[in-house]
Amino acid sequence: MDIKKLVESKAQKALEASRKLAILSTAAKNSALLAMGASLIENRAQILEENQKDLEAAQDKVKKSMLDRLALNENRIAQMAEGLYQTAALPDPIGRGEFETIRPNGIRIRKIHVPLGVIGIIFESRPNVTADAAALCLKSGNACLLRGGSEAIRSNIAISKILQTAAEKSGIPSGAIEFIDVTDRDAVGVMTSLTKFIDVIIPRGGAGLIQRVKMESRVPVIETGVGVCHTFVDESADLDKALAISINAKTSRPSVCNAMETLLIHESIADKFLPIVAKSMREKNVELRGCSKCKKILPDIIDATEEDWVAEYNDLILSIKIVKDVDEAIEHINRFGTQHSETIVTNDLSNARKFQNEIDAAAVYVNVSTRFTDGFEFGFGAEIGISTQKMHARGPMGLNELTSTKYLIDGDGQIR
Amino acid sequence: MDIKKLVESKAQKALEASRKLAILSTAAKNSALLAMGASLIENRAQILEENQKDLEAAQDKVKKSMLDRLALNENRIAQMAEGLYQTAALPDPIGRGEFETIRPNGIRIRKIHVPLGVIGIIFESRPNVTADAAALCLKSGNACLLRGGSEAIRSNIAISKILQTAAEKSGIPSGAIEFIDVTDRDAVGVMTSLTKFIDVIIPRGGAGLIQRVKMESRVPVIETGVGVCHTFVDESADLDKALAISINAKTSRPSVCNAMETLLIHESIADKFLPIVAKSMREKNVELRGCSKCKKILPDIIDATEEDWVAEYNDLILSIKIVKDVDEAIEHINRFGTQHSETIVTNDLSNARKFQNEIDAAAVYVNVSTRFTDGFEFGFGAEIGISTQKMHARGPMGLNELTSTKYLIDGDGQIR
Repeated sequence: MDIKKLVESKAQKALEASRKLAILSTAAKNSALLAMGASLIENRAQILEENQKDLEAAQDKVKKSMLDRLALNENRIAQMAEGLYQTAALPDPIGRGEFETIRPNGIRIRKIHVPLGVIGIIFESRPNVTADAAALCLKSGNACLLRGGSEAIRSNIAISKILQTAAEKSGIPSGAIEFIDVTDRDAVGVMTSLTKFIDVIIPRGGAGLIQRVKMESRVPVIETGVGVCHTFVDESADLDKALAISINAKTSRPSVCNAMETLLIHESIADKFLPIVAKSMREKNVELRGCSKCKKILPDIIDATEEDWVAEYNDLILSIKIVKDVDEAIEHINRFGTQHSETIVTNDLSNARKFQNEIDAAAVYVNVSTRFTDGFEFGFGAEIGISTQKMHARGPMGLNELTSTKYLIDGDGQIR
Repeated sequence: MDIKKLVESKAQKALEASRKLAILSTAAKNSALLAMGASLIENRAQILEENQKDLEAAQDKVKKSMLDRLALNENRIAQMAEGLYQTAALPDPIGRGEFETIRPNGIRIRKIHVPLGVIGIIFESRPNVTADAAALCLKSGNACLLRGGSEAIRSNIAISKILQTAAEKSGIPSGAIEFIDVTDRDAVGVMTSLTKFIDVIIPRGGAGLIQRVKMESRVPVIETGVGVCHTFVDESADLDKALAISINAKTSRPSVCNAMETLLIHESIADKFLPIVAKSMREKNVELRGCSKCKKILPDIIDATEEDWVAEYNDLILSIKIVKDVDEAIEHINRFGTQHSETIVTNDLSNARKFQNEIDAAAVYVNVSTRFTDGFEFGFGAEIGISTQKMHARGPMGLNELTSTKYLIDGDGQIR
């Protein structure tokens, strides 16, 4: 079948479903989510069988880390189901009033939250995204059109069919969860052109995917996830805390977007702090790359180049730069950062304030590890990603960020 | 000079200024706005002289209505100044807290409003947009890069220079208000490609300009202003109110985006209401185009074609369709409308509720004219436009809609 027609017809079905989803009761959405979770558990053998086929096909083609992301087991399926149950337990963002006023002429204006409509989600190898994304979109009254990575196609088809069947049995309109069940690479190009049917596209994956979608899309895009995060250790920092925060930010989970990539150290404490932090990092197998000033203190450090300041390693590698003050730190971060998460370790109130005021990022921390930028850690529940753009939503995107608004105006014959 | 270099250098200056603007005090912004208003009045002779040159150059090239939009006089300059003073009087949206929580581990999370950064505004003939846009951007801590229509180039250069000089004298960073002072058509294409410097582009003008910017831009765009608005007169409507609302929505200012373009009438009252409304509309010189059912009641009505249902006339023309019930009205509006402003005239509570729930538009009215969709009428003060998209902002965009957010997180050494 023609890929353009296939994607268009799925998008059109999603649009039709979205009109009905927008006015569905919270109870109806919640009972569907519970049924969908139960159905994943019930049909886990089928999911594992399809996943096994994906794993066999991918065996010699991809890196071991990708095979790990692709692999499902009973526990991971139980986690997916748990995610659906948790989404059912979150408050419904739809219909919530944001603002209300009565104007002098007597008209009453209310601003309420409504769904965005149809959300396109383009993701890579993890099949659990299928369930997570479907759950968040359904709870926020949006239809979704999902496009997963080709190496997970069989797993994703199995999961999406199970979810669709369970949802429809619970009274969710057909079309609410659409999955593009072919691996044709052109599908992404078609999706990003469908301004008539899709309201927003959220790419989830590596920088390459995000850049491609951002540059190609005619549909509005929410950028997520690229994080070149910094920790700046100021002159007045408590060095024990600075060490703990640095080690945590770099090594607790180096592959994620809120992990530290560059450590900035105030020059007046570099002599003391750099050797300590270097020792601990190396004990954790972190490769260090430093500026020329670092080299004077730590002669065996690898030379950092310009590329290191913009690199999202997602790995046990750390670049280090010695700066002369908080201003140079801010300048470096605003120049090379990706506006994701940045932290200062300091005991100087004025520098803490300056850092939070002047750093242009989604999350700006004082004396806390950047690893906390996350929907669950912020207390919002599940998230669809971390937005690094300024329009619409910034930071962890939960259910509230998957909504738009609408003004409702009531009167009795007012004219202007 | 190379247009690409020119636009890029202005955008870069705006970006640099935006960093300083973001942390400017409310008092500093307000005193600059007052000085800018006073300076427009003081230098009005110069503005009028340049405007006269624009008018002479445009004389034989453009329609009379465009000449009217282009023309300035003492009164219009006083209005521009008044707009600057009013913006100074509005509350500052920057720094306002939206949310605050303390998590179990003791970290304190605050969500505050911050500027978007650099806002590109592409507009057509009215030179007053230069002052209005500069004022709203400055008050919301954003730098702006303005691009006006070629026929108003001399007026816009004069106004922007006066504003820049007054702003800088008041301590506003140079680059805060950048105006593209050449008429080269490629400037728009350059602006829409500058993702590194510009955070959002807002086109203000006709549907052609908006479509072009939307299709070309790599920078996120906020769509404004195209309005194919409907009035639906339900079976139970008070016909006096229905008539008043219809006449007001169509004729009080037919050129604006919140004016009615299509009137939908419930079939059971069409025999009675159509002749009344047709008579009043024709007295106001409105040309009527109707569906086949209208023709049976009003034989001399012009036949409406499919194009009439999607037309934004912005003129004294009205299309009329007779529908069988509120569901057909909703279906018609969701199919042909532009998600701007829609109203139902009814006394049936269930239909009113249904209409507000199911119509997908920025503003959905019950028993009120659509002409109220406007920043001043909603009580928000000046607006940069009416957003008809669902992302970021929907409806009248005032100062709050020109902001993004930032999470500030404080702790004392928390790690994850």
